[in-house]
Amino acid sequence: VQQTIGIIGGGQLGRYLCRSARALGFRTIVMTAEPEPPAASDADRILPGAADDLEMTETLLREADIVTFEIEAVGPAVLERLAAADAAGTVSVRPGAGVLAILRNKASQKRWVAAQGLPTAPFRVFDDAHAALTPATLAGFDLPLVQKAQVGGYDGRGVHILRSAADLERLLPGPCLVEDFVEHVAELAILVARGGDGEVRCYDPVALRFEPDHHILDQVLAPAVLAPALADRCRSLACATVQALGGVGVFALELFLTPADEIIINEISPRVHNAGHLSLEACRTSQFEQHIRAVAGLALGSTELERPAAMRNLLWRGVVAPAQRLPPTLPGNSARIHWYDKTEGRPWRKMGHLTALGDSAAAAAAEAERACQAILTLTNGACG
Amino acid sequence: VQQTIGIIGGGQLGRYLCRSARALGFRTIVMTAEPEPPAASDADRILPGAADDLEMTETLLREADIVTFEIEAVGPAVLERLAAADAAGTVSVRPGAGVLAILRNKASQKRWVAAQGLPTAPFRVFDDAHAALTPATLAGFDLPLVQKAQVGGYDGRGVHILRSAADLERLLPGPCLVEDFVEHVAELAILVARGGDGEVRCYDPVALRFEPDHHILDQVLAPAVLAPALADRCRSLACATVQALGGVGVFALELFLTPADEIIINEISPRVHNAGHLSLEACRTSQFEQHIRAVAGLALGSTELERPAAMRNLLWRGVVAPAQRLPPTLPGNSARIHWYDKTEGRPWRKMGHLTALGDSAAAAAAEAERACQAILTLTNGACG
Repeated sequence: VQQTIGIIGGGQLGRYLCRSARALGFRTIVMTAEPEPPAASDADRILPGAADDLEMTETLLREADIVTFEIEAVGPAVLERLAAADAAGTVSVRPGAGVLAILRNKASQKRWVAAQGLPTAPFRVFDDAHAALTPATLAGFDLPLVQKAQVGGYDGRGVHILRSAADLERLLPGPCLVEDFVEHVAELAILVARGGDGEVRCYDPVALRFEPDHHILDQVLAPAVLAPALADRCRSLACATVQALGGVGVFALELFLTPADEIIINEISPRVHNAGHLSLEACRTSQFEQHIRAVAGLALGSTELERPAAMRNLLWRGVVAPAQRLPPTLPGNSARIHWYDKTEGRPWRKMGHLTALGDSAAAAAAEAERACQAILTLTNGACG
Repeated sequence: VQQTIGIIGGGQLGRYLCRSARALGFRTIVMTAEPEPPAASDADRILPGAADDLEMTETLLREADIVTFEIEAVGPAVLERLAAADAAGTVSVRPGAGVLAILRNKASQKRWVAAQGLPTAPFRVFDDAHAALTPATLAGFDLPLVQKAQVGGYDGRGVHILRSAADLERLLPGPCLVEDFVEHVAELAILVARGGDGEVRCYDPVALRFEPDHHILDQVLAPAVLAPALADRCRSLACATVQALGGVGVFALELFLTPADEIIINEISPRVHNAGHLSLEACRTSQFEQHIRAVAGLALGSTELERPAAMRNLLWRGVVAPAQRLPPTLPGNSARIHWYDKTEGRPWRKMGHLTALGDSAAAAAAEAERACQAILTLTNGACG
């Protein structure tokens, strides 16, 4: 009988998970409340429910042999229900409800990272930053600071940088943590897969570039230009972190590289990640196939980067949407364009991404930039 | 609006065409009379009709923007209807009904190849071999000879080798051609893509091995071990042949390499081919994505072989079928196994294939062999 993999969340990450699952012979069922989820094109079934929908979770548990996640912001009651089902042996929950419970909340994530003795920025946790952070109390902190919402941050939302007292006027509401701003020369990411047998395999570290005003991931380059010893330290740190977590699946670590060559953990995601999209074209095993292999108990695939690559996110630029369907390749350009088939635009929403390969990351970046410029023209500035 | 690609034929070739089409943003509709077509897992819609079903062709033409083929044995009336629709501009038929009309029949294919002055074995065409080939008339021929059915040959069916007068007892019935047996040191194949703009791109030549008793493709190695000048001659011959044909899409040429280093065309297929399956894992652009790019008018992708590879077909061995679903990877082996989800076994039916990568084609072949042995064990000798 064909096994069914249930996925909580139905965005683009879910789409590529479904695509890999089908190629490996699995059926997929996706739970999402989005009206036009990108995963619908590749899922065998959509369950219309949000990630805190207990009733729909019961349906998911009846149909799925394995449950995994494309988002970490899963409701606590749903997580408890999944943990109970996994313990009862009726379903495999991967990477594991316990790991998700630690990582879904940035305060508990930070506490876990610090308790492990892993390198991370000093931080304080607040139930309500408005009460704690005022011009009067700010004297007790060294600016700049970074305020992060404890739950639900995504695509640059949920992060606020405090450079001066004036930035207090735009504090994020609700439970948050505040951490020291880490001076850095680069932001890096590294994907790590952990198999059902405990084997851990790292991908090569990649370099992240963010859109400066909205702090949205804009470009990923692979490989990151790093001294070999530094790249090895990234891999060791990432492997040790995922071993300590003990979950099964693909994880993403976002890292800061400081001027003193320290590597600081910024965030850990218990799932495939935007920083790993280029693995679809550039790596022997994509992060999506790797995640499915891991959660299904198959042997992990090679993480080898076969060719330098550059990924660019295609963001909604907040102007009129293009009416026509956009092409997956452009004449005279080798970049592969992925559109997520989102019909509703929102400012800075990720509408798609593209990946270019090259003889070097710089050459790939140049090809990707040409493709982005062409898409901006093609969409009259709507997207690029 | 999303474009729809119609595919005539719904086997494993159709499945991977559908998968690539979806990944490139197209909708797919597959016309096939098979009750459990492998393409059903990846097609958006199945039209239940054989490749000579005129009525279902009308439905296909109403829904599809582009029509292409995973089989060449399309009915003449269907081809005429498709040609008319293409000429009227209501649909794009790719590679083109005219090209298919030449290649679908091995007699007209042979005549075309010979008329172009391309190298091929001497041949004679017969409406009925039984009448022409008898022990009495055989004195006029030099044995061995190869008899090929004009239409519908596939997977070793439709080819009969005459080594002695005794082989006359198993002549294929119906219209056929008879050609000189070409003494050869290797059988090769080469995939060629021709884009809508007339650009032609060759893949690297691969080496074919056939199951000796049933003449079914058993193993493909990439790259074929050839002197560079010989590989270049293969590419030149293949490109020239496809340019002369003038169609749009992926074509496969099967070639004989003679002891005198001559390259002789054995067969031309106007479609993706079993010899190109390893392109899924080993090439920058798979034959399936390349075909969809070509027929949809997109730029062709790179045909680069990224890594030596070996493909093995997984054939039904005619014993009891395994009840359980078979896995897509095996512990301790890096081969990627593709199962076609065919529930009905027939002797020597292609039930799946696997691809192993390696530092050399020989290393990949060894890894593939280990995987085949493991599958034979796993299936109690049913498949491997």
